[in-house]
Amino acid sequence: MALRVVVVGAGAAGMSAASRVKRLLRDKAEVVVFEKGGWVSFALCGTPYYVGCRVKSLEELTYYPLEEFTKKRGIRINLYTEVVDVEADARRIRYRSRGGEEGVYEYDYLVLATGARPRVPRDWLGYENVFTLHSLDEADRIRSFLVANSVKRVVVIGGGYTGVEVAENLRGLGKEVVLVHSRGHVLNKVLDEEIASIVEEKARGHGVELVLGKRVEALEGQGGRARRAVLTGGDAVEADAFIVAPGIEPNTVLAEKAGLRIGETGAIWTDEHMRTSNEYIYAVGDAVETRDALTGGRVWWPFAPAGNKQGYVAGTNIAGGEAVFPGVVRSSALGAFGLYIASTGLREEDAPRYGFRPVSAYLKARTRSHYFGGGPEIHLKVIADEETGRLIGAQAVSEDSSAFWRVNIVSALIWGKATVWDLFSYDQSYWPGANPVWDPLTIAARLLLRSFRGRDWRTLS
Amino acid sequence: MALRVVVVGAGAAGMSAASRVKRLLRDKAEVVVFEKGGWVSFALCGTPYYVGCRVKSLEELTYYPLEEFTKKRGIRINLYTEVVDVEADARRIRYRSRGGEEGVYEYDYLVLATGARPRVPRDWLGYENVFTLHSLDEADRIRSFLVANSVKRVVVIGGGYTGVEVAENLRGLGKEVVLVHSRGHVLNKVLDEEIASIVEEKARGHGVELVLGKRVEALEGQGGRARRAVLTGGDAVEADAFIVAPGIEPNTVLAEKAGLRIGETGAIWTDEHMRTSNEYIYAVGDAVETRDALTGGRVWWPFAPAGNKQGYVAGTNIAGGEAVFPGVVRSSALGAFGLYIASTGLREEDAPRYGFRPVSAYLKARTRSHYFGGGPEIHLKVIADEETGRLIGAQAVSEDSSAFWRVNIVSALIWGKATVWDLFSYDQSYWPGANPVWDPLTIAARLLLRSFRGRDWRTLS
Repeated sequence: MALRVVVVGAGAAGMSAASRVKRLLRDKAEVVVFEKGGWVSFALCGTPYYVGCRVKSLEELTYYPLEEFTKKRGIRINLYTEVVDVEADARRIRYRSRGGEEGVYEYDYLVLATGARPRVPRDWLGYENVFTLHSLDEADRIRSFLVANSVKRVVVIGGGYTGVEVAENLRGLGKEVVLVHSRGHVLNKVLDEEIASIVEEKARGHGVELVLGKRVEALEGQGGRARRAVLTGGDAVEADAFIVAPGIEPNTVLAEKAGLRIGETGAIWTDEHMRTSNEYIYAVGDAVETRDALTGGRVWWPFAPAGNKQGYVAGTNIAGGEAVFPGVVRSSALGAFGLYIASTGLREEDAPRYGFRPVSAYLKARTRSHYFGGGPEIHLKVIADEETGRLIGAQAVSEDSSAFWRVNIVSALIWGKATVWDLFSYDQSYWPGANPVWDPLTIAARLLLRSFRGRDWRTLS
Repeated sequence: MALRVVVVGAGAAGMSAASRVKRLLRDKAEVVVFEKGGWVSFALCGTPYYVGCRVKSLEELTYYPLEEFTKKRGIRINLYTEVVDVEADARRIRYRSRGGEEGVYEYDYLVLATGARPRVPRDWLGYENVFTLHSLDEADRIRSFLVANSVKRVVVIGGGYTGVEVAENLRGLGKEVVLVHSRGHVLNKVLDEEIASIVEEKARGHGVELVLGKRVEALEGQGGRARRAVLTGGDAVEADAFIVAPGIEPNTVLAEKAGLRIGETGAIWTDEHMRTSNEYIYAVGDAVETRDALTGGRVWWPFAPAGNKQGYVAGTNIAGGEAVFPGVVRSSALGAFGLYIASTGLREEDAPRYGFRPVSAYLKARTRSHYFGGGPEIHLKVIADEETGRLIGAQAVSEDSSAFWRVNIVSALIWGKATVWDLFSYDQSYWPGANPVWDPLTIAARLLLRSFRGRDWRTLS
């Protein structure tokens, strides 16, 4: 009899697991996916660009058409079908379809890919012009509303990834945009102040009004529509529409029903094989926590590359293989206002909390050789631990995509537990059309090495 | 009394050493540079672009104007002054200026930065229309000759870095270009066949006639001008000008006069502090060999980033500091015909010679997410050792600069002795405008992991 594998959630992580099982076991596995929405293998990261009409259709935001999974890969997919309970001892799930049909399905292995959800005061969403943006359908509703109601002015609440990208896209549509963020700087989970300031300067240059360090205490309105966001201190900002992007939290409802262990971060706990505390249940994607390979602790890091790899790893193990997902070092990236923005590791401000004594180098440099025009500027910060010399973080911003790549080089070095000496020494190549002969990364290493003067470079470890 | 430091050669490596000593010791060091030519801190890598008029003036090819070194950094520089002998026991050099003036100069420490030189049959250079390209002055002579003689057709001899870049630049000037290369593929020192073929296809698309696998046996001409390059087998190629770029060799003349140890590669031997076999003589740049951190052996790797770092390391040590240059992993890069071309580590073809059993993944993929237009294609090859799983090389070609950066990520991983499992696992970030969620590097890792099926990923090491 075929191995019965049930996957809950048809996002990238879930479909990655489903595909991997079928790939390895083919007819020896029956893989069934339950998805409460109507989309498969979708890219939530792309939704701001759909709102901004840079991505024309929602179909473009799926990695593959449905038939790729059903016809070609032989996966059974139930759309608009929500899994409402997991009976772990009996190894079966209960589902309910959009039409109200209920059913039970037994599994040999279950994969929970239930994702994350926005944290929003419930009463805010009672207004028809207040939106979150955490699904393709929500993206569609926002875009429709903007057009149908000739929206002129939008307040975006929250200056994290989604907030910043939505604000940029709304400006691209010619809307007046106010971005309200409760902290003193945007993107404060991943950027230190000096790098975030560059993003803010660019945002303002693009016409976004930034209201920083103020919390939205309430939305007020009438006739079913919100009119004003009331801020800490009593000021208010008016708008025709409000997009609430206040951060997300892992969706652990089913995991809790199944009695699975929830980790210290509030997300589903798994071991490095992506197995939960129940040996027949795996979990992957934005609903799970993972290992922080830099600090050695646990971290909830809901980004797509990790989710995809986790799906691949879970699928491999379910199929009888031997694979591990080793964790993350907190790499992430975005683009906004013509900038590539990237970070990895810890922010300098956060590093002491993990037992590090941070030292940092911050520099502004040209991305290419002067005789190739120099290229756009890059603002680069690299952070190391004063005691061991280990690299513990990097952040960069530039109009040039090398900001993204240079930070990923530091990510690869951090992965290998590299020191500032390694940052100086690793064999960075050079071509004048791509970088200066003293790459900004190498210069950052030189600046950092000043903090270690008198110490033998090789003993930094 | 101030420490007297003499540097022979004002290229980037030499000036890097000179600057570092002055930076650390200031008035406690007297640094004197002898340079047989007229340029300081020059970028030889830029000369093909000067020939192609993409770099307008030779001054642009110097990193800093002369005054930066003399006035601001307090370095004494003697241009057009050749060091003709080193009397190591007496710790002094003998020099001769362009005007014929001779002299002796004593040193506490000597830095040899004598560079490399092209390997060309001496009689070829007797023709006034035959050139090498290994100095700014030669670049100037070529550019002048092309204009003054209305050159229509040029034969470039040698399909290495210089040959390929010169060929591209001459096409950019509208010349007919024939590139003759003795091996079956261009860039055969750094690229395997399948990657080199992409470059060749692009070269032909740009109108360069490629003659591969044939050696130029002789140049024939009359009236002081070469007219034909006679190839193996008797065929000949005619042209108005000939640029000979047949590879370079380390310039060890002074090192041999000083009785220094020459390494197994034919370049000057140094320890990791960049000290030669004479404790008062350091050597840096294209004249020295270094450690191959991948194979553990010695390698002559005459590229600018290594030279600059070696200068920095030598200068630090001369000034009483403690720095080491740890070697290279054979990273290099170039651009030609709209392509970024990069490589690191060993070619698959060469790997067995160093005791590796190579397995490789080769793929063609889009550089960005499909809903951001996909970006240009990248051709990527990653090579690993079948026994240990260690990464031992990567090569990439793309119109997108990410080819350059992705290879440098592998370079950083190789530096950390990473395995294919690390290539899968390191925390590569994702933003749809920069890469697909499954980055081509991660896909290469997945392909490579097939060669290790059944082995615990973590035990690959």
